[in-house]
Amino acid sequence: MRRLTTARVAAALTVAWLIVSASPAAAQDPLPSWNNTASKQAIVAFVGRVTKAGTPDFVPVPERIATFDNDGTLWVEQPIYTQLAFAIDRVKLQAAGHPEWKNTEPFASLIDGDVEKALAGGDEGVVQVLAATHAGMTTDSFERIAREWLKTKRDARFKRPYSTLVYQPMLELLTYLRANGFKTFIVSGGGVEFMRAYAEEAYGIPPEQVIGSAGRMKYQLRGDVPELLKLPAVDMVNDKEGKVISIQKIIGRRPIAAFGNSDGDLQMLEWTTAGKGARLALIVHHDDAAREWAYDRGSKIGTLDKALDVAAAKKWLVVSMKDDWNTVLAKQ
Amino acid sequence: MRRLTTARVAAALTVAWLIVSASPAAAQDPLPSWNNTASKQAIVAFVGRVTKAGTPDFVPVPERIATFDNDGTLWVEQPIYTQLAFAIDRVKLQAAGHPEWKNTEPFASLIDGDVEKALAGGDEGVVQVLAATHAGMTTDSFERIAREWLKTKRDARFKRPYSTLVYQPMLELLTYLRANGFKTFIVSGGGVEFMRAYAEEAYGIPPEQVIGSAGRMKYQLRGDVPELLKLPAVDMVNDKEGKVISIQKIIGRRPIAAFGNSDGDLQMLEWTTAGKGARLALIVHHDDAAREWAYDRGSKIGTLDKALDVAAAKKWLVVSMKDDWNTVLAKQ
Repeated sequence: MRRLTTARVAAALTVAWLIVSASPAAAQDPLPSWNNTASKQAIVAFVGRVTKAGTPDFVPVPERIATFDNDGTLWVEQPIYTQLAFAIDRVKLQAAGHPEWKNTEPFASLIDGDVEKALAGGDEGVVQVLAATHAGMTTDSFERIAREWLKTKRDARFKRPYSTLVYQPMLELLTYLRANGFKTFIVSGGGVEFMRAYAEEAYGIPPEQVIGSAGRMKYQLRGDVPELLKLPAVDMVNDKEGKVISIQKIIGRRPIAAFGNSDGDLQMLEWTTAGKGARLALIVHHDDAAREWAYDRGSKIGTLDKALDVAAAKKWLVVSMKDDWNTVLAKQ
Repeated sequence: MRRLTTARVAAALTVAWLIVSASPAAAQDPLPSWNNTASKQAIVAFVGRVTKAGTPDFVPVPERIATFDNDGTLWVEQPIYTQLAFAIDRVKLQAAGHPEWKNTEPFASLIDGDVEKALAGGDEGVVQVLAATHAGMTTDSFERIAREWLKTKRDARFKRPYSTLVYQPMLELLTYLRANGFKTFIVSGGGVEFMRAYAEEAYGIPPEQVIGSAGRMKYQLRGDVPELLKLPAVDMVNDKEGKVISIQKIIGRRPIAAFGNSDGDLQMLEWTTAGKGARLALIVHHDDAAREWAYDRGSKIGTLDKALDVAAAKKWLVVSMKDDWNTVLAKQ
């Protein structure tokens, strides 16, 4: 029989510990798609501060709330919002059942493939298109339709399914924060049910942590079976001040970290950083036309007219897609 | 130096294991305040079914959503809703600043201590009182006021702080479900910010898992500091059909277990049990005037006119406070 002395056990444990802790640092980097620039260092420093017990900046786990905008922050939003591309496809599919659309804008132009003309009228046209394509069915039916479309429909430039057009560095950031006790939420202007149709698979964010714009619903019994019918009426628009109100209404706790890419995120970042203690506000700056898109001030989608100035004044983190990220899109 | 043989180590581990696993079964009962009746057996059987991997009823952890009504299901709701008791106290405190209330109902009667007369006019009076006492301040101020009141104000019958008037068997049930991978939510007609002021401490339910009725809010900057102002306007009433709509809007996933005590919970239980697979619908029946209160059909608060019939027809679990619970209120 082999004998184990206390000393031998201790020695074995020490060796085991050395093997584990001596693994190459690179293999343990939780943010490999981030270049080792000031942005990455600031993120890592922030997480270090709020998770270090016994220090003034320590934040207990239940209060580690992080909120992420979706369009342009977690996935591609150009040349048009993905949800609008979905709605346009739905209009084309439903056109046969709506002969009146041939003579009604914005539907007529959409059916002709002229998106620019269709949406020249502004938000009102968009709301009409969303109402016509996102209502008049149960929540279960909508989920099936959106899920299928997101998995299969490919975008024109990158030739890959929309649900895969997500930023690898942001996926790593989500995982890194969760590994450090954060609860990660989406707080986006996108439709909440559209985002939920892919958010869990793509980002690891469950439906109850997805907050978005929403339409009204009606509860009804079809025979003995209850169902929720989606109505063609807006319940809430989750943008600008609306994001802060949603955070209070649904999360009920002020985030300690918030991530966005446009003026629509400005108030959420203001609200987050106005809390006491260490805070992180981060703006993804689209400055990489070669690998993704380049836009900021004056852009029709994802404009950064005010937020870039406020970020400079308040020393928020502005992440350069070009310089801070060595990879942009996630592997399919 | 003491020598450890492999055999000796193994023997020591075996003894340790025997000590742990031989603890009396009673000490390991996760529901000690529940008598060993059919109700308890049905709960344990349900949890066993949905957590057993490889069986048709198995439910993956992220889908183990359980929703609980609050008033009358998790804590005492008689003789008046606690939140109304809070509002009445606020009216009295604020009366000096509102000389006009002396001649305006329902405020005049409330200041005189005649609650019944004040609320004889029905819901409209209640809404007026809630609007006057829950608005005109920031969300941060309201939280401080509600938190303080809930911790210190004692109810007339049990002489203990309202925040401790919670049901011990339901606390055990919440803990038991969470230990089995469930995410527990409150879905109640009560005001969301009022409930959040004590729910985490009392129930272990964080603010983002508390859903309730809500007032409108306004985001504004006071100088450079953002704040959320509570407005005297109703945003949503979280009752009956409203509970199902909130579940879809905020949780985005159908619960597999739901718990209530009144007709206001009927639709939530219908919606929950209409899903596929094993489902649990439970109604707390207040039939214990000695230890708590006895009421059901026709009660002004927590009426069970329809839900008792539906429960009988659909074989939902109706829990008798008198027979199924050996303890009612939690230890202070």
